[in-house]
Amino acid sequence: MIFPATRLTLSGERFSVHYRLVAGSEAEARVIASGICLEQTVEVSDRLLADDDIRGQVVGRIEGLEAAGPGRYDVAISYAVETTADELTQLLNVIFGNSAMQPGIRVLRLDLPQSLLQQFKGPRLGREGLRALLGVADRPLLGTALKPMGLPAADLADLAYQLALGGVDIIKEDHGLTDQPFAPFAERVPRCAEAVARANRQTGYHCLYAPNVTAAADRIGTRARQAKDWGAGGIMVAPGLAGWDTLRMLAEDDTLALPILSHPAWLGTFAISPEQGVAHHVIYGQLPRLAGADATIFVNHGGRFAFTRDDCRGIIEATEQPMGQLRPIFPIPAGGMTLDRLPEMAEFYGREAIFLIAGGLYSHSPDLAASSREFRRLIEQIGRSA
Amino acid sequence: MIFPATRLTLSGERFSVHYRLVAGSEAEARVIASGICLEQTVEVSDRLLADDDIRGQVVGRIEGLEAAGPGRYDVAISYAVETTADELTQLLNVIFGNSAMQPGIRVLRLDLPQSLLQQFKGPRLGREGLRALLGVADRPLLGTALKPMGLPAADLADLAYQLALGGVDIIKEDHGLTDQPFAPFAERVPRCAEAVARANRQTGYHCLYAPNVTAAADRIGTRARQAKDWGAGGIMVAPGLAGWDTLRMLAEDDTLALPILSHPAWLGTFAISPEQGVAHHVIYGQLPRLAGADATIFVNHGGRFAFTRDDCRGIIEATEQPMGQLRPIFPIPAGGMTLDRLPEMAEFYGREAIFLIAGGLYSHSPDLAASSREFRRLIEQIGRSA
Repeated sequence: MIFPATRLTLSGERFSVHYRLVAGSEAEARVIASGICLEQTVEVSDRLLADDDIRGQVVGRIEGLEAAGPGRYDVAISYAVETTADELTQLLNVIFGNSAMQPGIRVLRLDLPQSLLQQFKGPRLGREGLRALLGVADRPLLGTALKPMGLPAADLADLAYQLALGGVDIIKEDHGLTDQPFAPFAERVPRCAEAVARANRQTGYHCLYAPNVTAAADRIGTRARQAKDWGAGGIMVAPGLAGWDTLRMLAEDDTLALPILSHPAWLGTFAISPEQGVAHHVIYGQLPRLAGADATIFVNHGGRFAFTRDDCRGIIEATEQPMGQLRPIFPIPAGGMTLDRLPEMAEFYGREAIFLIAGGLYSHSPDLAASSREFRRLIEQIGRSA
Repeated sequence: MIFPATRLTLSGERFSVHYRLVAGSEAEARVIASGICLEQTVEVSDRLLADDDIRGQVVGRIEGLEAAGPGRYDVAISYAVETTADELTQLLNVIFGNSAMQPGIRVLRLDLPQSLLQQFKGPRLGREGLRALLGVADRPLLGTALKPMGLPAADLADLAYQLALGGVDIIKEDHGLTDQPFAPFAERVPRCAEAVARANRQTGYHCLYAPNVTAAADRIGTRARQAKDWGAGGIMVAPGLAGWDTLRMLAEDDTLALPILSHPAWLGTFAISPEQGVAHHVIYGQLPRLAGADATIFVNHGGRFAFTRDDCRGIIEATEQPMGQLRPIFPIPAGGMTLDRLPEMAEFYGREAIFLIAGGLYSHSPDLAASSREFRRLIEQIGRSA
């Protein structure tokens, strides 16, 4: 059979997804690209479609195709904005719902028109708002992680106190700290928030404590609200674990209105193989920003993970390139960094970054507050010299 | 500094994750495995830990390591059940939160003890319950997909009517149908449910219509409830898009109590590279079952996707192997199947499967009801001969 011929009234507004394809020839690449156009929309063979507006407007459209090195082709495919139904979940689905199950297709970047971007509130604070909140105008920010899983809440609070006393701007929790019996959320968060507030009163700084609220779908909203009620200055969410749209929901909640850090847990597989998945630029950059994170944590090149300098550049670019009304957000390179790498990091990232050093800070000296002061001194030095 | 020495009272219950590592030697594999033990729990170097219960019980523990072909090693790592805080999000995080960002590590399977499994309600119906609901005792089930995106609700309802009239057991929607202006959820679902009910009254069959409720985090619960109120017999959720724990939340909702189909959209990247990510067995088998899906959709080998026979066998195994009190669920092979492949599919999957044929059914003849009757006749023949 042929599906009934259909006339549609669409806006004509389209968004584009840039894919890199593994293909033996341009002709082969074109066949793959045509397959994506169908797979990501109507999920049927073109033979079943009438010569109508479904074929003409709903099916994806190849906007450009060019060689990108031996056996590689870059294709831009546009989709009608109406296919997304103004839903982030469905936007993701149109981008890569089914084609992710085919080898040799990688999402490189998204080009989203204003008509689609305006459906998203985006980052509440972004770089500028976070700087204002922390009272830091013109240097990189320094961040660290509260850890490890297993430590009682009182000990974690004591560590948070020392880190804040030393002048760290942002203390996020390890994303592995949730509601374990070792340090239950309801005990840990008030204690740590109090410890950081106490340190702030002593220093005059504005250290921000961001507990990890990643949790069950029916509990995460409560956790976020509790975090705020108990004095946390921000929250951290792992969208890979909790869902991208859960991040958006929290970011758009005006009763919450806290800065949000996005954590990359469970997302690693998306970017790790250069021939598949979703590029760093998108998964650690464009998506967190679109969903409303004010800063995105990822792993720096040269640490204990496999990200390259180019991967990290791609993320930086996504945090700050023009994206409609969506504010630029902070990149947070992390993962096995040490204080002696700060000058090099500053050279690479410039001022518009949050340098997250955790293990390297804890191991720097026996005195955690002193190590944190040293961390701050180095960052301020970078700020003056930049 | 060294973290404060900590004494913990843990149950001693542990769960295991089996990883496949790319490594040049057994010694190298052991170093990688030790890294995973730390990375997935405390996220600090062992040097920073006291000789205490954090190091002894919270840090992952290598339970076995063996060669698995040239340059490949399989390692089993156990973690204290308390690390998961009884949360699915945190269970995922302990399994592969950070290590997903390192190349050459693949999650092969999960061994979860009763103490952890009992935290999950699991599938409400499973194979047996779904068979009872559909009134089908002893043959494979036949399923299809309602499509394409772009068609108005009235036309989709008409297609659903013909499919149900022909005797299809389960009509799921394309996962790309959400709430587009072409066929809004609130119009499409009542119309299609009514059409299927009308056909059921004529045939005496129990065709089940499962609309796609995948949606925004703050809307998906409402969609599921509306689907039920409007007469849908089941729902479909894509956990890759909506979050794994959202699937669990819907499955455990006693006021909903509908069969749930899990759809693989956005999950493809996890399994596609044999050297990274999360194996088919886990991502399309163990996780949907744990989260409470009654059936799991994936793409069959030999279709238009890249799954192998072994990949599919791994999924089947996960749907039915002993898993505490969790009921066996149905595998739903799909993706480019045609009626003439049914005998071969029956040989491979046996009776305990839902064979999902969509494009191949629509294109089988000009008369969709007749094609559906033929589909049913072939399945019943298989049922008799098995």
